[in-house]
Order: sequence, then C-alpha cells, then structure tokens
Amino acid sequence: MSFDRLIDKIIQMKNPAVAGLDPKLEYVPDFIKSKYFLQDGETLKAAAKAIFKFNQAIIDEIYDIVPAIKPQAAYYEMYGYFGMKTLEKTIKYAKLKGMYVITDGKRNDIGATMEAYTTAHLGAVKVGDNEIEPFGADALTVNGYLGTDGISPLLKICEEKDKGIFVLVKTSNKSSGELQDRLMGDVPLYRVMGDMCENWGSSQIGKYGYSSVGAVVGATYPQQLSELRNELKHTMFLVPGYGAQGGGAEGIAGAFDENGLGA
Amino acid sequence: MSFDRLIDKIIQMKNPAVAGLDPKLEYVPDFIKSKYFLQDGETLKAAAKAIFKFNQAIIDEIYDIVPAIKPQAAYYEMYGYFGMKTLEKTIKYAKLKGMYVITDGKRNDIGATMEAYTTAHLGAVKVGDNEIEPFGADALTVNGYLGTDGISPLLKICEEKDKGIFVLVKTSNKSSGELQDRLMGDVPLYRVMGDMCENWGSSQIGKYGYSSVGAVVGATYPQQLSELRNELKHTMFLVPGYGAQGGGAEGIAGAFDENGLGA
Repeated sequence: MSFDRLIDKIIQMKNPAVAGLDPKLEYVPDFIKSKYFLQDGETLKAAAKAIFKFNQAIIDEIYDIVPAIKPQAAYYEMYGYFGMKTLEKTIKYAKLKGMYVITDGKRNDIGATMEAYTTAHLGAVKVGDNEIEPFGADALTVNGYLGTDGISPLLKICEEKDKGIFVLVKTSNKSSGELQDRLMGDVPLYRVMGDMCENWGSSQIGKYGYSSVGAVVGATYPQQLSELRNELKHTMFLVPGYGAQGGGAEGIAGAFDENGLGA
Repeated sequence: MSFDRLIDKIIQMKNPAVAGLDPKLEYVPDFIKSKYFLQDGETLKAAAKAIFKFNQAIIDEIYDIVPAIKPQAAYYEMYGYFGMKTLEKTIKYAKLKGMYVITDGKRNDIGATMEAYTTAHLGAVKVGDNEIEPFGADALTVNGYLGTDGISPLLKICEEKDKGIFVLVKTSNKSSGELQDRLMGDVPLYRVMGDMCENWGSSQIGKYGYSSVGAVVGATYPQQLSELRNELKHTMFLVPGYGAQGGGAEGIAGAFDENGLGA
C-alpha cells in the first residue's frame, strides 16, 4: 500500500509534514535566474530551468528530515511545457532522494479521460513496445464532483501500481462552505464526499489501517477536521492551510488518530 | 466578450458543434507513427509529434465548417511534457486557422494557485521583461467544488483578456447524480452550481445575452438540460455526451434558446 510507505517514512523521521513545492520565478534567487537568462534569454525555457535548480536545492536541504513533497501542478503549467518538464524532473529527483511525491493536480474527469490523467500522473503509457511513466508521482490529489465514474480508474492503478489519491473533501479556503457545508438531508456535502472516500477505499486497506484513498481537509477548519477524523477511520488526510492560510498547530491536532498518525 | 466571438462563428457557419481533440496514439494512422518512430524511437517525443501531425490534419479538414475545437488536456498530459508541447502547438495552429479553442482541463484550486492555472491556460506569465502566453486558449473548463475563491481569479482574466470559462454543472456520466442530483434544501446540487454560474457571470454579459461564465451540462440528461436552459438565462452551455455516450439530437434540442443559440 502506497500510504504504508508514506507512513513508514513519517514514523522514521518523526515528521508528518509535506513540503509544498509551488515555485514562482520571483522566489528564485537572482544568481540562479541570471545564469539561465544568459543561456536562454528571458524565456519559458530559462524560467523552467531556474525553477528546477531551485527545487533541487530545496530537496537537497530537506530530503532527510521531511518525508514527502507536494508539487502544485498549476505553478509548472504556468511555465508551459518547459514547466511540465521541470515538474517531471522535480518528481524524479525527489524520488531518487527517497522522498514520497504527491502531485497536487486536483484532476477530475470520467472514464477513458480519467484513465488518461491516471496514466499521466501515476501510471505508464504504451508507445510502441515501450511502457513509459510520463510524470510518475506516488499520489495525486483529485476532485470527486463527478462521482464514482471519476474515481474508479484511479482505484485500479492504486491497486496495480501501489499508488494513492487524496480526494478534496473540505478545502481550506474561505468560500469552501458555499457548497461543501450545505446540507444534503442531515449531513453537509463534505461529509457525503468523506463517506464516499471511505467507501472507495474500502477494499485497499494497508497495515496502518488506512486505505489508498485519502482526503484533503483544510487546517483552517479544525472542528470539521476532528469530526472527519472521528468518522473516516480508514481515510488518510492531507491537511493544507497550515501557516500562511491561518491554520495553527492546535487546530490540526484533530487530524491525527490516537497513534499520532492519519495525516 | 469571448463567447460573442464563438457565437459569431456559430452563426456564420450555421454549426454549433465543437470538435473534441482527445488523441490517443492508437488513433493515429501507422504511416504517420512509423515516420516519427524512425526519427525518435518509440518515445514520448515521437508519440507527441505524431499526435500533433494527426491533429493538424483534422484541423485542416474541419476549420472552415466547425467553429471550435476542444482539446482534452488529459490526453496530452498522458504523453508527458512532450504531450503538453503538442497541446500548445495544437492550440496555436487552430487559432491560426481562425478556430475558437476550449481547453478541457476541468482545473480547480484557490487563490494564487488558481491564478497560476488561469495564467497557464488563458493568460500570460512574466519572465524578466517578457509576457509569454504558455498555452493561450480562448476558454477553459473548470470545476467549482471549491466555491467562489476558485472562480474569482478566472473572472478577472475573462474580463481583461476576453476569455471564457465553462463550469461543470451536470456532467454527462452515469454516476454524475451521486452528488450532483442530491437535494440541498429544495434544489439539487447541480442547480445550486448553475445558479452560482449565473451569479459569477452577471457583470460580464455580451451582445447575445450570454456571460463569460458558461456551464458544462451533459447531453445524456435532456430533462435537466431543458430545465437549466430555462433557468440560466445568461449561461452558455457546453454539451458533451452527444454520440458515443448516448446523447441524441432530440435530447440536446433543449440546450438551445428560442434563437437557436446558447449551446
């Protein structure tokens, strides 16, 4: 089970943090940027190369104290296909250093199209007689608005290739309640989505009791975080919003189970 | 208004169809594939080049009778960053031929991250003193599960750069009802999402009465399609599911307004 590997690392390093890699060119130090601008001009190619160099330096600093990285796909797409090359290289480099990689892509679609996303980020594509991993992350964040048709193709790859997914349940942003908190009968939409996660993962439960289907639950809503932790016994949580978005250490305590795991 | 440009083309060509470009390597004729396999081996690079050649041939055939293409991002991501290069080249080529381009990416996130997706697909990124369009489509499909925080960054670019978005409302797949049909108070989730689209678009309404915020409504649910057409007066529809998924001509009649427009 993919999340067993993640939890093994968390226990070994005594650290449940995931390092987000959401690189904007403006975060990259000038001495790195100017080198690539000199080589390739002020182009997407130069920007993407500078960002890779920056990511590499971050990974070198943290790989032995942080178990996982979470590159946010949007920041790589923003630099076009050169940016996507940097995403691929960043994932490969982090895995080489032994890190667990969660691509934050919030992908969603149905049937054959969802299979294509699954292949892109977690699987391998056939080209002639070759099987090639396009991006090759360990886990992917996804959006479940389309229902089971959007999740089934992922479950197959999770099982076959030892991968995991995190489904958006209760997101960290201010307006997440507009839809997610609204009641469907007696329970809010986020609970309905959470229960679907439990259900989707029910046949793929690992040695720590967590399935290959996790949930994204924001640190900014500590009450819902505790409520969901109590209800979703087999669902690993990815908890964004700690720090800059206002989530604090007390607030996220509820994300963990009685063994200090689960998030 | 971006959708004014699309509707102008629809009227001029008397054709409201959007050609999906969801290329798998297996659809590409052997004589194209073998050329690139010979050049670059059985690699993602060769696959992506063959797919671009195939897309180009399709665009050459249809550009004067079909107003718009809809490349599905998943099928390009599946061939790694070379695939994303083919996505960019396909968009550029279709625009050169005068077509309106809708990237089907179903992207979703919040705040700065959603801005990055918006920049990637509809906007331009700053690199040094240059402003570069990474993918440069006319419109993008998006998922609204995260609420207004996920849509606001798009609205700004729609206004500034004359672009459009289509928000998933009632999707064409079998299990779309698991969440989308469930009642929130008196109305199903898809109606709540539809009303949010009307609201998000209310300040950007074009000459045909449609705003820059459209909705994805599946052809496979003709009753909901008619219901939504009646209720969402300013929301343009993108209607997938015609043909292979079982939606028929009678079923989609309800997608159009009394002028034969709106979808």
